[in-house]
Amino acid sequence: MTEEAIMSLVSESSTSTVFAVWFLIGAALVFWMQAGFAMVEAGFTRAKNTGNILMKNLMDFCIGTVMFILIGFSLLLGEDLAGFIGKPGFDIFTAYANFDFSNFVFNLVFCATTATIVSGAMAERTKFLSYCIYSGVISGLIYPIEAHWIWGGGWLSQMGFHDFAGSCAIHMVGGISALIGAALLGPRIGKFSKDKDGKIKEVNAFPGSNLAIGALGCFILWFGWYGFNGAAATSKEQLASIFLTTTVAPAVATCVTMVFTWIKYGKPDVSMSLNASLAGLVAITAPCDVTDCFGAIVIGAVAGLLVCFGVWFLDYVLRVDDPVGAVAVHMMNGIWGTIAVGLFATPTAPGNEETGVVGLFYGGGTHTLLIQLLGFATVAAWTALTITIAFVIIKALIGLRVSEEEEITGLDETEHGLPSAYSGFSLMDMSNTLDVNENTNLGVDEYDKASEAMKKASVPVVNASAVVQGTPLESGMNKVVIVTKLSRYDKLKKALNNLGVTGMTVTQVTGCGIQKGAGQMYRGVEMDMTLLPKIKLEVVVSNIPVDSVVETVKKTLYTGKIGDGKIFVYPVSRVVKIRTGEEDFAALQDVE
Amino acid sequence: MTEEAIMSLVSESSTSTVFAVWFLIGAALVFWMQAGFAMVEAGFTRAKNTGNILMKNLMDFCIGTVMFILIGFSLLLGEDLAGFIGKPGFDIFTAYANFDFSNFVFNLVFCATTATIVSGAMAERTKFLSYCIYSGVISGLIYPIEAHWIWGGGWLSQMGFHDFAGSCAIHMVGGISALIGAALLGPRIGKFSKDKDGKIKEVNAFPGSNLAIGALGCFILWFGWYGFNGAAATSKEQLASIFLTTTVAPAVATCVTMVFTWIKYGKPDVSMSLNASLAGLVAITAPCDVTDCFGAIVIGAVAGLLVCFGVWFLDYVLRVDDPVGAVAVHMMNGIWGTIAVGLFATPTAPGNEETGVVGLFYGGGTHTLLIQLLGFATVAAWTALTITIAFVIIKALIGLRVSEEEEITGLDETEHGLPSAYSGFSLMDMSNTLDVNENTNLGVDEYDKASEAMKKASVPVVNASAVVQGTPLESGMNKVVIVTKLSRYDKLKKALNNLGVTGMTVTQVTGCGIQKGAGQMYRGVEMDMTLLPKIKLEVVVSNIPVDSVVETVKKTLYTGKIGDGKIFVYPVSRVVKIRTGEEDFAALQDVE
Amino acid sequence: MTEEAIMSLVSESSTSTVFAVWFLIGAALVFWMQAGFAMVEAGFTRAKNTGNILMKNLMDFCIGTVMFILIGFSLLLGEDLAGFIGKPGFDIFTAYANFDFSNFVFNLVFCATTATIVSGAMAERTKFLSYCIYSGVISGLIYPIEAHWIWGGGWLSQMGFHDFAGSCAIHMVGGISALIGAALLGPRIGKFSKDKDGKIKEVNAFPGSNLAIGALGCFILWFGWYGFNGAAATSKEQLASIFLTTTVAPAVATCVTMVFTWIKYGKPDVSMSLNASLAGLVAITAPCDVTDCFGAIVIGAVAGLLVCFGVWFLDYVLRVDDPVGAVAVHMMNGIWGTIAVGLFATPTAPGNEETGVVGLFYGGGTHTLLIQLLGFATVAAWTALTITIAFVIIKALIGLRVSEEEEITGLDETEHGLPSAYSGFSLMDMSNTLDVNENTNLGVDEYDKASEAMKKASVPVVNASAVVQGTPLESGMNKVVIVTKLSRYDKLKKALNNLGVTGMTVTQVTGCGIQKGAGQMYRGVEMDMTLLPKIKLEVVVSNIPVDSVVETVKKTLYTGKIGDGKIFVYPVSRVVKIRTGEEDFAALQDVE
Repeated sequence: MTEEAIMSLVSESSTSTVFAVWFLIGAALVFWMQAGFAMVEAGFTRAKNTGNILMKNLMDFCIGTVMFILIGFSLLLGEDLAGFIGKPGFDIFTAYANFDFSNFVFNLVFCATTATIVSGAMAERTKFLSYCIYSGVISGLIYPIEAHWIWGGGWLSQMGFHDFAGSCAIHMVGGISALIGAALLGPRIGKFSKDKDGKIKEVNAFPGSNLAIGALGCFILWFGWYGFNGAAATSKEQLASIFLTTTVAPAVATCVTMVFTWIKYGKPDVSMSLNASLAGLVAITAPCDVTDCFGAIVIGAVAGLLVCFGVWFLDYVLRVDDPVGAVAVHMMNGIWGTIAVGLFATPTAPGNEETGVVGLFYGGGTHTLLIQLLGFATVAAWTALTITIAFVIIKALIGLRVSEEEEITGLDETEHGLPSAYSGFSLMDMSNTLDVNENTNLGVDEYDKASEAMKKASVPVVNASAVVQGTPLESGMNKVVIVTKLSRYDKLKKALNNLGVTGMTVTQVTGCGIQKGAGQMYRGVEMDMTLLPKIKLEVVVSNIPVDSVVETVKKTLYTGKIGDGKIFVYPVSRVVKIRTGEEDFAALQDVE
Repeated sequence: MTEEAIMSLVSESSTSTVFAVWFLIGAALVFWMQAGFAMVEAGFTRAKNTGNILMKNLMDFCIGTVMFILIGFSLLLGEDLAGFIGKPGFDIFTAYANFDFSNFVFNLVFCATTATIVSGAMAERTKFLSYCIYSGVISGLIYPIEAHWIWGGGWLSQMGFHDFAGSCAIHMVGGISALIGAALLGPRIGKFSKDKDGKIKEVNAFPGSNLAIGALGCFILWFGWYGFNGAAATSKEQLASIFLTTTVAPAVATCVTMVFTWIKYGKPDVSMSLNASLAGLVAITAPCDVTDCFGAIVIGAVAGLLVCFGVWFLDYVLRVDDPVGAVAVHMMNGIWGTIAVGLFATPTAPGNEETGVVGLFYGGGTHTLLIQLLGFATVAAWTALTITIAFVIIKALIGLRVSEEEEITGLDETEHGLPSAYSGFSLMDMSNTLDVNENTNLGVDEYDKASEAMKKASVPVVNASAVVQGTPLESGMNKVVIVTKLSRYDKLKKALNNLGVTGMTVTQVTGCGIQKGAGQMYRGVEMDMTLLPKIKLEVVVSNIPVDSVVETVKKTLYTGKIGDGKIFVYPVSRVVKIRTGEEDFAALQDVE
Repeated sequence: MTEEAIMSLVSESSTSTVFAVWFLIGAALVFWMQAGFAMVEAGFTRAKNTGNILMKNLMDFCIGTVMFILIGFSLLLGEDLAGFIGKPGFDIFTAYANFDFSNFVFNLVFCATTATIVSGAMAERTKFLSYCIYSGVISGLIYPIEAHWIWGGGWLSQMGFHDFAGSCAIHMVGGISALIGAALLGPRIGKFSKDKDGKIKEVNAFPGSNLAIGALGCFILWFGWYGFNGAAATSKEQLASIFLTTTVAPAVATCVTMVFTWIKYGKPDVSMSLNASLAGLVAITAPCDVTDCFGAIVIGAVAGLLVCFGVWFLDYVLRVDDPVGAVAVHMMNGIWGTIAVGLFATPTAPGNEETGVVGLFYGGGTHTLLIQLLGFATVAAWTALTITIAFVIIKALIGLRVSEEEEITGLDETEHGLPSAYSGFSLMDMSNTLDVNENTNLGVDEYDKASEAMKKASVPVVNASAVVQGTPLESGMNKVVIVTKLSRYDKLKKALNNLGVTGMTVTQVTGCGIQKGAGQMYRGVEMDMTLLPKIKLEVVVSNIPVDSVVETVKKTLYTGKIGDGKIFVYPVSRVVKIRTGEEDFAALQDVE
């Protein structure tokens, strides 16, 4: 053999081993992205649902693994049947010695990513059981089949459709499922305020409970993305170029979003900038190996704008409530990345010299672009169709959404028996814009439904002497203190506002009564729930009779169940409003 | 040379370099698992001990490194002496140029894992100094010697004992140490409630303070485990198969546990499912390279059940308090994984074609199984013996456990002078089930111990006029507010309950007095401790005389030291119980 | 070809591919360190600035990327011009096919590390816009030029200056910038208490808000450091030795610091030990490839002491406020590591056999040491000069520091419109040592500035009848409750102390008034801010007339703006001091 021939063999052999190991390291990095999704979703939602969202992110991987063994893997990579699916089979059990372990692990972690995207958009209100089911359907059927088209030798791959690491196959599919799921579920209670005609008049923000871990999640995802985009590289030049584009696109996207929100909203928005990094990563995923630095910059810049548009579009046009921005990040930028291949693919990218994948802006004409559009359209249609069927069936059989009471209480407690994912921390998880009459039946006044006898036993016992008792001091002012359940807070606030109460002080306390809680289990041990989180409202009134306040509170909080709360009235000697120096009655008027 | 001969050489050479680098990447991933342990343990324990548990996880690695340099490494990998230990030596200093750097780093990070397992089971009550000592003993002596048997050319490795990545050598050893340590320490105050005969009548749950970082820790561990199990692979097929089994086993374990807890406790348990992932990982650690997908499924399924059983077994049978489930995860599944090699090893696993390690269920008979059982038994005996000696000596010399006062206050403050690991967060870390008479001497009533003069100076000054002062309004109701130290809360609650007080509102406040705190140092700077965390209890009484309440509180809280607290009495005009409409006296009775 | 020749070629070829891939994996690990810096800085600062610090850590990477594309990369690695800079150019756009992708990514992530170090020292008070600008200047100019000297073929590299992974080029440069920035900014409000002559009499600690993620950040950094130090290795022996020294130095540093703080402050300090790990890593960064285990031990031990000294030195000598210890960790140990090469370099380190880089203690004489000192001095001078110019210009044009009001409120809200990074968590972020007269103009009494008419309208309306109202019970005691803004707390506390009030109870509450907040935007959605965080102070007074208290509070809190707060006075029946049994007036005296 000549030296040249030997060197070529050598290089081939060593490259093959190196990239086989790197392929697995990449897979491990993609697994690690599960942690990123879990942290992003836990960070951007409310603390009362943290345990639930963590559990969902854990289970979609675990359930996905089972589904992928049973059916998914062979549908994806089995012998091609008519370009549509792989042939189902059980080589993993029957022919383990020759099984393609590497590809199994690699495709499994990608598959799990698809499923996990959905949980963010449907967070804080989805039934856990329903989640497990549709997550399994995505991992076992929806994803493997379209991924077979794109990566498993199916019809799209035969046509030359290019989606290197899954802008389309993974992110768009996850994002479309997320959009449809969130739309079918409906918004979280209080997300949209309606006027009397039922028209939405206001969009309300629910700030994330833990931006530190939310940001950590974004960093985890970005780090993992070097594996996500790079794992399938086959030469060191290609890998290095992928690393470059995978760095440039999100960085530019983040800068663009920061500047855009700064201009548009007056201040640079933290959580939107974090989303922008992910948007840039999603967009560069399909073209990461075929575009260059300039392409990555443009793709990133568009992604940065697109994510801002997407969040606005869902809130103000589609009126779909997506707590973590999964649709804007994964669907919109998944589509954009898929199309971007048709615009920015260039033969100067290492490994793409002779593939013929060349974009419109790099002299490739519309050939690649049209194939990309076709791929986007068919995969989107497939996803929309199948996931809708799945959701509709689940909704009909067991329901998609938890009850309003469960949603307000939080899924940690109601779905998992976990009083708090942050036990020991004092949480004041009061969405101050809860509008109970909007998309819930909690607005129905239990007082109106109570029997006459119950009403008589409750409200009317107020008598003259009580009124006398209530005003013992010449100041004529009283403090009314109400201790009740956290979930009744918003209703009470509104009722008091309607009565003319213009200021109150709210404290979250721990109430302790004789009644035991509902026997929560933590790791199989029943928890002593004598200490329950309660809310304490303090209102000082002068002109408004104490009786009216007491009556209103009773009417508002009455359900006839243990835990309705108590009202205490204290005499007040004096009230001073510092700014104006007004005292007593005048000090209690907030009329400016 | 023929082409074939060349290619074989080439492949060998490149494989050797690739796997040498991968070996180190794997070691870095195993180092990263330290972060996983730190997060799991910090997340699953109470916030008042977070700084302490983080410090322990940091220090076991650092102290372990020093011990490993001094003695551990040579005991493990030095020249074999009679199959029992490696020959101690200092090649690391005297022959650095030819030192086996790779193996040093690799074995060090594994060693540190063993030590770190123990901290979780002994969390929240172990003296920090004692921890440092026994952690050093594990890293310097206990682990290196048994690891020499298994991996260092010792007698077990000569017999063919198979423990690829350490189910036995690391997890079981760490788990046994954890069990013995936790048993010797005794349970945390309040973990087990006893009846009058001293029989345990109830197991109490202490929910983790931060499940978000607890879950993150599990994801970190799972991610790191690809390095843990894979680092020692020597071919790409073997590595890929290891990745497959390392993915399948924990995924199946988690699914099984989710279903099991769902059925058994009515709801899918979040923290137990997280533990199950770790259990599956521990169990697959020994057989990861010799079993196949089917084996991994069965091993994982058993691990999922075993971890539930283990937690229950410790709580309800052994009555050992293991805050993070380290014994159930590491000891039980370490044993299970060790034995599983003897059941599920198969020649179809790549690299295991000709080793003769074949399990009972794959036609290997009992040969391998018996060796595995022998290895388990001898290593378990070695560990139990040596760690018991270590603990007993430490207990005798400096004690293992902090004082009850320190435990209730929290180890952050008492062991590290850190007022809170979550400074600025309002923590309500009240274990509502503290039973001070159980395993603590806090139950001894300081009031009973005070001199007569002190008593006289304190309690009896209540006089008739005060009683008159206490009932100024015709309502006859008073609010008694007590501001005192957090650690006295439980005692006070019980005393008031005994007096007939049936409801109270508890708020954590920040109390500010003239007295300075104990001069806490933070990073060498003394902290101004005028703001101390206090607890405020509000009780409204009508039928129960204010005097009785005041007397009881005084008697209960009296210690004669600064910080006993104050009692305030306010007149109340009116009380309404919303559910029933009852007012005043009637409203204060919780008799249902 | 002979077998030997073939094998040599083979080994070269496979090594080259392996280390090319490892180079990129290393770069990904260094990117991951961004997450580490973000978590360390978020964990060690106060919760009200968490969103801001996360955003800064995100943006320095993203802005740095843009700057590095535009100018930084070519300044660093472009064709050498006179040993001073690389030739600016745009090969990344014009010659993508032959661009050095690998080196671009690798040097970019290192560059971003330099910039990110600064944010920690300047945390909690720097204007976000100014941060973006100077971060861009560091990434685009300051770092690339000095890195060109050291790594880009510049004059220092030609002289044989050795800084393998950047103790000097990165950490010292970042650390010096941090020191100058922190000094120019001035300390956070309340960091140093002054006596009447303006002399600093006390250093106050601001404990970190989230040590769990702070510790996680340290683990992330340590893990990432294996990539940071190892990425540029070229043989497996060298890489393994680097892993060894990179493990030993921080472990020893941490042990030394733990012991040192234990002895010095009585207890092992958690956060200082975490800093010590980083200090050891910084110090070993330059010599990681040229020293041995013994060298690493000594370097680590010195680093552990140096970080303690550095924190003390800044607090007590330089009086510079560095919230996270960036100067002590990065600057001091960066210098130490640079010099350590000249002391501990040894030819026994793999790959260093023939380089001539030999330290004083290993028989190399002063040659290497002098070059190292020269490099340190010139790079330090360059950095100090250029960063000072940058800061001075920024300060003159737009200012470096936020206003005092913004600082007390927190940068999350004022710079990003984010009410809290931990939404739903109850935060009690009261620095109890705020001294408003120190380095802020908040001390100016708004009351003194108000017009006579405003004063008249406010304070003097207190009349005789109000006094009568204030003492309705014969107890003669009153509770005065003040609800006001969190930022006024400290001033109020002091005023009340001066009045003779000796105890108070503080609760963080959520206040609800009619007035709307300032229209905060969260992800483009306006937040309903009717619920504002407020502070509630409760003071019970007997001897001190209620009127004096009311007057004092009014005078202290008055600004004439909405949000000044309200004062409530309640009658008190009785007060008991538990420890002494004293009642009423006597119980309110804290005179011991």
